[in-house]
Amino acid sequence: MLQRPTIRILGIDPGLRRTGWGVVESIGNSLSFVAAGTVTSDATFDLATRLRQLYDGLQGVMATYRPDEAAVEQTFVNKDAVATLKLGQARGIAMVVPAIAGLPVAEYAPNAVKKAVIGVGHGDKKQIHMMVKVLMPRATFDTEDAADALAIAICHTHHRQSAAARAAFEAR
Amino acid sequence: MLQRPTIRILGIDPGLRRTGWGVVESIGNSLSFVAAGTVTSDATFDLATRLRQLYDGLQGVMATYRPDEAAVEQTFVNKDAVATLKLGQARGIAMVVPAIAGLPVAEYAPNAVKKAVIGVGHGDKKQIHMMVKVLMPRATFDTEDAADALAIAICHTHHRQSAAARAAFEAR
Repeated sequence: MLQRPTIRILGIDPGLRRTGWGVVESIGNSLSFVAAGTVTSDATFDLATRLRQLYDGLQGVMATYRPDEAAVEQTFVNKDAVATLKLGQARGIAMVVPAIAGLPVAEYAPNAVKKAVIGVGHGDKKQIHMMVKVLMPRATFDTEDAADALAIAICHTHHRQSAAARAAFEAR
Repeated sequence: MLQRPTIRILGIDPGLRRTGWGVVESIGNSLSFVAAGTVTSDATFDLATRLRQLYDGLQGVMATYRPDEAAVEQTFVNKDAVATLKLGQARGIAMVVPAIAGLPVAEYAPNAVKKAVIGVGHGDKKQIHMMVKVLMPRATFDTEDAADALAIAICHTHHRQSAAARAAFEAR
């Protein structure tokens, strides 16, 4: 029988003020909660310092939980250019921290995350959070951003399993 | 007589495809060129890898030239949200690399850079590049982004001198 390796996935929901993170483990079709939390930056500091706070926080998560792969939400903001630039800066940090450690970093659009977690490409935040609890009853999260990050990690486990199944089928 | 310390400044003009950098030395009112260049990311790679390429490139510049302070252009794009998000991600890397090394990182709007280099808050790229050559005849740059980065570094030397003069005046 094929040995099914445990894969540990870090999901990140980036934001300059609050960046949510969630770590899950995937063994075959089973999914288990490892940890989740929020890295914050202090708005009274200058931008470079705030980005460093996010960087240090995410580095700490990487060092503590040693994930194998990462997934980041591909957020699109419909707000002004200033808000988009802020988000982009935080997102740059969220993507580069796992990349520096040599992890593959996947990106998922919000509707892909919703589809993976609640089965359809639409739905509100509450439904996502309820489904995270249904899929991983032991999951705890301090903020909505941490719950979103867990949803992103779950989304990645689905996509990488589909990709593996396709590869196995094609290799027959 | 007051000893005037040499301050080495790294200017950065961030962009996902090309990030220009320029290092200048400021001793009192005199300004000298140290180095300038361009860090690029390979568009055939995924975003996280490209951000890591920028991170590694800027880390290399930091290690080679060991600047004391950094300055980054506060770019505003009038293009679409996707372009703004891309720029933001590159800008996050440009700001966090010197911040990780403990450097203060200043931000300057494009019109502040123009005013510092050509004397007025408007003018085209060619005028900026000509003035960079006038102010530092030994300056060489491989791209427009590198020339812009030198202009940003020059802008920072002006602003930090004004700030020092104000502080000295207020301390009398």
